[in-house]
Amino acid sequence: MAEPLRLGLAGLGTVGAGVAALLRANGELLAERAGRPLVVSAVSARDRRRARGVDLAGLRWYDDALALAADPEVDVVVELIGGADGVALKLCRAALAAGKPVVTANKALLAMHGAELAALAEQHGVTIGFEAAVAGGIPIVQCLREGLAGNRLSRVYGILNGTCNYILSSMRESGRSFAAVLAEAQALGYAEADPSFDVDGVDTAHKLALLAALAFGCPPDCAAIQVEGIRHVSALDIAFASEMGYRIKLLGVARLTEYGLEQRVHPAMVRIGTPISQVEGVFNAVVAEGDQIGTMLFSGRGAGAGPTASAVAADLADLAAGRAGATFGRPVKRLRALPAAPMLRHRGAYYVRLMVVDRPGVLADVAACMRDHEVSIEALIQRARNPHEPVPIVLTTHEVSEAEMTEALAQIGALESVLEPPRMIRIESL
Amino acid sequence: MAEPLRLGLAGLGTVGAGVAALLRANGELLAERAGRPLVVSAVSARDRRRARGVDLAGLRWYDDALALAADPEVDVVVELIGGADGVALKLCRAALAAGKPVVTANKALLAMHGAELAALAEQHGVTIGFEAAVAGGIPIVQCLREGLAGNRLSRVYGILNGTCNYILSSMRESGRSFAAVLAEAQALGYAEADPSFDVDGVDTAHKLALLAALAFGCPPDCAAIQVEGIRHVSALDIAFASEMGYRIKLLGVARLTEYGLEQRVHPAMVRIGTPISQVEGVFNAVVAEGDQIGTMLFSGRGAGAGPTASAVAADLADLAAGRAGATFGRPVKRLRALPAAPMLRHRGAYYVRLMVVDRPGVLADVAACMRDHEVSIEALIQRARNPHEPVPIVLTTHEVSEAEMTEALAQIGALESVLEPPRMIRIESL
Repeated sequence: MAEPLRLGLAGLGTVGAGVAALLRANGELLAERAGRPLVVSAVSARDRRRARGVDLAGLRWYDDALALAADPEVDVVVELIGGADGVALKLCRAALAAGKPVVTANKALLAMHGAELAALAEQHGVTIGFEAAVAGGIPIVQCLREGLAGNRLSRVYGILNGTCNYILSSMRESGRSFAAVLAEAQALGYAEADPSFDVDGVDTAHKLALLAALAFGCPPDCAAIQVEGIRHVSALDIAFASEMGYRIKLLGVARLTEYGLEQRVHPAMVRIGTPISQVEGVFNAVVAEGDQIGTMLFSGRGAGAGPTASAVAADLADLAAGRAGATFGRPVKRLRALPAAPMLRHRGAYYVRLMVVDRPGVLADVAACMRDHEVSIEALIQRARNPHEPVPIVLTTHEVSEAEMTEALAQIGALESVLEPPRMIRIESL
Repeated sequence: MAEPLRLGLAGLGTVGAGVAALLRANGELLAERAGRPLVVSAVSARDRRRARGVDLAGLRWYDDALALAADPEVDVVVELIGGADGVALKLCRAALAAGKPVVTANKALLAMHGAELAALAEQHGVTIGFEAAVAGGIPIVQCLREGLAGNRLSRVYGILNGTCNYILSSMRESGRSFAAVLAEAQALGYAEADPSFDVDGVDTAHKLALLAALAFGCPPDCAAIQVEGIRHVSALDIAFASEMGYRIKLLGVARLTEYGLEQRVHPAMVRIGTPISQVEGVFNAVVAEGDQIGTMLFSGRGAGAGPTASAVAADLADLAAGRAGATFGRPVKRLRALPAAPMLRHRGAYYVRLMVVDRPGVLADVAACMRDHEVSIEALIQRARNPHEPVPIVLTTHEVSEAEMTEALAQIGALESVLEPPRMIRIESL
């Protein structure tokens, strides 16, 4: 068997320790599949003394991660530090400039600096593997880059953040509020102490930018993504969604439209019975739609030591076997920025919830606003009748433009009998 | 861009014409992703005059497919003739012996001759791409070979035959018999005039042998697979399955057990609500279970011109980009035959339907037979009461060995009050 591929492992948190553990447990199997052994030659992490459940004896240890890029006995740098800038960025730049391929689980880094880093990699004849950056163990990066290479893709979407999916699934099952379920998720370790990266949709946006780059041949462009998180999703909306035949999921959606590439992250209603509606808890799923394949779905664990280490190992095996291709599936000079489709041009169906004074004529006023903007109502629920309390009116619309919908809601929100700003959730047609 | 990869296309049926159409429609995109153009240089098919909806003008045409292997302007042979032997086998041998890689959708060929052909390929420094042979457009071959390379897999299973899944889905929706739905499927073109390859499980077994080879590093071994088709699945069993919370699917299952590798194809009850239970109609799905990833599911269209051409294109792109690895994911000499776990050693739960005379004591007799073989009953339905007609007794068991189950059923079948041979369907625990 050929010479081993020598790895420099930067970062020994959950994922880093998971990679070390995988190489120890399945190293022989991986070597057989990759055609060469993969050995950790050096590591870098902040605290040497922390127990990590993995034997690191005999490995060179650097306090400064950048030293891995310079170490002549490191062939590949595995960046598992995290963060869009700082050490992770410096290390990747240094490794690539030294002609060393990089394998990373860092979605933020690549979503923000992907085009620059891919160009640097190409310039030095190497590549960046980032299978672990999107949807954990699901090999969706390879699938989009290679498996579906013969397809003209029209839409790629998915449930890309396990924390949000866990929170939304738990809210539905228990009927509890976002705040209560978030607190529980934090206690269980499913959500960070500062959950904003997850629940505000930022993490999903990073992953979506990478999926879109692979699917549509454009540089990752986070700034073009319309991002909305799940903080405002209420138990009431989840209950109404169920009643109307929907689940609420935080989706990342990238879609080619006549106005350009639409990229958006937001809570979306998906019809119960569709495969994506059944992806619950911490699971992730990605759906790709192509002219040859039709619709394809991949689901699996989106996070955790094992799944993420599995994805890192796949990239390492590709490198070891000499199979690694261009970072984003084609030469950087062939990545073409696509015009961003304005969100107001989005067309789709909508769910709307209003809290109104329960008195005659309210519904007529609401219906008139909708009519004025050519919003056609598909279904409507107005059940509770209580003259002393605000009551909900819930409706779904037929397909309409976001511009018309926004104007209709502004007009409705200004009605005296409407007591709160209207709540709108987009319905994703699947 | 580099020199084009020149293809010799053997077979211009649905799939062959689909590949030609894909190259015409998405050739530029594919070239960008593969790093080189892919051009059809020569074709071979039996009838030159048949209209195929694809422009074949300007291509060299051979009546004898073997000529493609000898043509110096053909770099890769794309074998889409089909059949486990005959021309397809000869062509593959000739192409590989001439040092030309082969891309094929031919599951029967590889299931029967895979180890021999992979060895021949290796000997001549080339490879065989067979993404299109399993689960249509789902890139499951690449996924098992590369994407999950870091995993020790324990079980791989799937719905691998769209015809059977369509028939079973239709039977459930309409309540009609196997024969009636088969006839309709034949009229719609979803089933062949001679449907035995599909409905008797042979096609699923071929695909399972390939999945098992990739997942467990063994040569494909069709002879080791226990195969049972769907002809005996009755509308009555489908209705009882629904009532008890199951769907009936034709599954191919490969699983490592303490007795060796268990490979089986049979109708199986899968719990409603599990992802695989929701794969309906002509869709395929594959589930892989690994020590790192946990459970992962892939679903999509398992057949048809577009999905199959998509898979062929993925293999061609890998070849063009120099990414193609060993045929079964590791050198042939490292493929190890695994002992076949005897089917009688299988352990699982079972569904049993008996048609009995409706008189006192029958249930006690049945229960006694079960007890004698330590089969523990989980649920039982005995609803209809009609002294003049046979009535069904339906039950599910807890986990038990197939040996005990078989003996219990033999004893039950011999009871005077049991009017037909007991019907048994395995329950797959998911």
